[in-house]
Amino acid sequence: MSDPFPHLRIDEDRFRAGFDALSRIGATPDGGAHRPALSEDHLGARAWFHERAERAELEVHVDGAGNHSARLRCGLPGARALLLGSHLDSVPHGGRYDGPLGVLCALEVLQTIREAGLSLAVDLEAIDLTDEEGAHVSMMGSRALTGALREEHLAHPHSGDEAFAQALARAGLTHDGILAAQRDPVSLAGYLEVHIEQGSRLERAGTDVGVVTGIVGITWYRLRFLGRADHSGTRPVAERRDAAQGACAFALAARETVLRDYPGCVVNVGDMRFEPGAFNVVPAVVTAALEYRSPDGDQQHRMERDLLDLARAQAERFDLELETECLEAIAPTPMDERVQHILASAAERLCLTHTPLPSGAGHDAQSFADLCPTGMVFVPSVGGYSHSPQERTRWADCVNGANVLLQAALAMGGAEIGQDLQDSQDSLD
Amino acid sequence: MSDPFPHLRIDEDRFRAGFDALSRIGATPDGGAHRPALSEDHLGARAWFHERAERAELEVHVDGAGNHSARLRCGLPGARALLLGSHLDSVPHGGRYDGPLGVLCALEVLQTIREAGLSLAVDLEAIDLTDEEGAHVSMMGSRALTGALREEHLAHPHSGDEAFAQALARAGLTHDGILAAQRDPVSLAGYLEVHIEQGSRLERAGTDVGVVTGIVGITWYRLRFLGRADHSGTRPVAERRDAAQGACAFALAARETVLRDYPGCVVNVGDMRFEPGAFNVVPAVVTAALEYRSPDGDQQHRMERDLLDLARAQAERFDLELETECLEAIAPTPMDERVQHILASAAERLCLTHTPLPSGAGHDAQSFADLCPTGMVFVPSVGGYSHSPQERTRWADCVNGANVLLQAALAMGGAEIGQDLQDSQDSLD
Repeated sequence: MSDPFPHLRIDEDRFRAGFDALSRIGATPDGGAHRPALSEDHLGARAWFHERAERAELEVHVDGAGNHSARLRCGLPGARALLLGSHLDSVPHGGRYDGPLGVLCALEVLQTIREAGLSLAVDLEAIDLTDEEGAHVSMMGSRALTGALREEHLAHPHSGDEAFAQALARAGLTHDGILAAQRDPVSLAGYLEVHIEQGSRLERAGTDVGVVTGIVGITWYRLRFLGRADHSGTRPVAERRDAAQGACAFALAARETVLRDYPGCVVNVGDMRFEPGAFNVVPAVVTAALEYRSPDGDQQHRMERDLLDLARAQAERFDLELETECLEAIAPTPMDERVQHILASAAERLCLTHTPLPSGAGHDAQSFADLCPTGMVFVPSVGGYSHSPQERTRWADCVNGANVLLQAALAMGGAEIGQDLQDSQDSLD
Repeated sequence: MSDPFPHLRIDEDRFRAGFDALSRIGATPDGGAHRPALSEDHLGARAWFHERAERAELEVHVDGAGNHSARLRCGLPGARALLLGSHLDSVPHGGRYDGPLGVLCALEVLQTIREAGLSLAVDLEAIDLTDEEGAHVSMMGSRALTGALREEHLAHPHSGDEAFAQALARAGLTHDGILAAQRDPVSLAGYLEVHIEQGSRLERAGTDVGVVTGIVGITWYRLRFLGRADHSGTRPVAERRDAAQGACAFALAARETVLRDYPGCVVNVGDMRFEPGAFNVVPAVVTAALEYRSPDGDQQHRMERDLLDLARAQAERFDLELETECLEAIAPTPMDERVQHILASAAERLCLTHTPLPSGAGHDAQSFADLCPTGMVFVPSVGGYSHSPQERTRWADCVNGANVLLQAALAMGGAEIGQDLQDSQDSLD
């Protein structure tokens, strides 16, 4: 692969100053961040981004879905946009890296390229996408931009109708505006995202960066184990139809099954609700929240079959009925193989160790993968903490992520981009 | 044993009419009753009792704890009172038999004795005790009457301060009045209660009545399994500290242990609360509600040791911390052996089959057992249902319960009572 500007690096001091400034918005005393999408602090972070982009003499654009962009135009007529993005919202009481790191890397890359006076074949766009974490509607911004969002998604916000309406009003957004944020796919040259790994594979292996091969498929099921309420003092244990026993046996067996039969996959029973839920009443109903994830679509289907069989078997064992309801079934999303090659080459150019690995978490990159060349870079998470104030990435790793993004953007957006992609494709054939 | 009035029987038609009339107050469409203590419908049931007692020319007394009594005085100076009682309150959406049956049996017994023109050596008192089921304060009426209730119990009502204050106002009760309801123990000749079994032992054995040997000891523990919240997509299953796994493994193992090592005892994990409780977050904390019951105090202590050891072992197995908090520890309450003998003799006089058996549920009789000769009679529960609209007892069994109470009251309250008790005592030695 040709190597247009191999020695260009981001400005570490400016990057750090930006990170520190942004981290103060919605900071929590425990070192985390609380910036649910469209909250005052989230909007404060977006205002900071807006102001910082303008100060860097980048063009600022906000679309109908609230996505905030800083643009570096190449000046060529009809140029496509290479998007470098992530999100500034956080989960409630989350960390300071999940999302903001990718947005700051993108902004820093644009500033670095602008200051270097380079001229690319594409427009560069650092984009902060709305509500990746789903305080209201998961990945609302990226799905609106890529045309995957429909009115029905807006009609059932996680936060409830009233809170969502208030949040939209606070941000000056409307349903019509959100749905009108869709862009023509031919205008997109690609999408790149730097993100923390949120796991411990890179740290454990001592590897600098991960090149994401794909984003796992995720399935959510609501399982209702139905037994019979009984007086806990007078109904002998052996004669009960105790919904808790079936639900608990399932939670244990599901873990065992995935550990044994599905290495690399995960399963979680993240919640159970007991009815009536009293010390002295045998549980009549236990409703369990089941989630499982696989990087492979066929495997995801096999997990569904095995886990539901398991739930049925445990229900039967304790003389219970079982009701199952699928709430989400998102297929795995492979990342573009040419882009993976470009990212790996960028890491090598920077003398960084790298490894291919699937993402266990969902990301905005999913929204773009069907429409344009899409890729992600992971940097190590200390201790694997995620969605937690303990979330942290060593600063040198953050800088690595930004420089990989810079080099990959130069490769994808440079004059040689067409040839680059061709080379990558050849090497894969 | 002497047998003063062996052929006296209650009036079945009047008894049935009373049961049907009372069942209409707070009736639910599914055949149950909803009369939580001090609710409008509970107070309506008490008003009905009051009116019915006055119509039967019995003396009506209401004490500071709201306990409603109908009295049949023997006319002897300084006569003690033989209490025949139970409660008119129900659990929310409960059945029509649990409590009311015992009060109606008592009222019917007084009417029968009064109409027979018999004169006993004791005052007879049919008593409806306040809040046996603990909508506000468990067994408030019987504990107030026997001096076991203290201000601290009133300060922490199950229903919360506001609901309790409203309920007291509705019933015209005050804290001071409740605490002043205590009676001098020497004024009590005994306490007898007819109740549905709430289990299926009598029905299964085809036995007419159960003579209660004692009321089980009950222990409530709150167990908190403490792990670590993690992203369910990115933290490998084997590296988690999943609080749900420890709690679920405990719930299963506790059942196995009690079935294997504690025949005749019961255990229940009636509730679990997950924190944070989401599809995509590994549970950090699961709080489980543990209850176990034993008719034997030493056994109750051994269960405590074994079950807490089990909880610790399961917590350790999944790398969790465990916090335990004992919320209730009520020792088993043996029933008076002389009274058991009187009840068994009464059943035999009526040609009813009978069996000794422990009560798996708590009852107002517990409050009296330390102060005066106390006993209980159980009648069979169809299908063992309890605290449910499905709760039912065949009418012939209800009549049997009332007649056993009548014969036992005559034996304990008759002129021969002193000799009776002496005879019973002799036969036990």
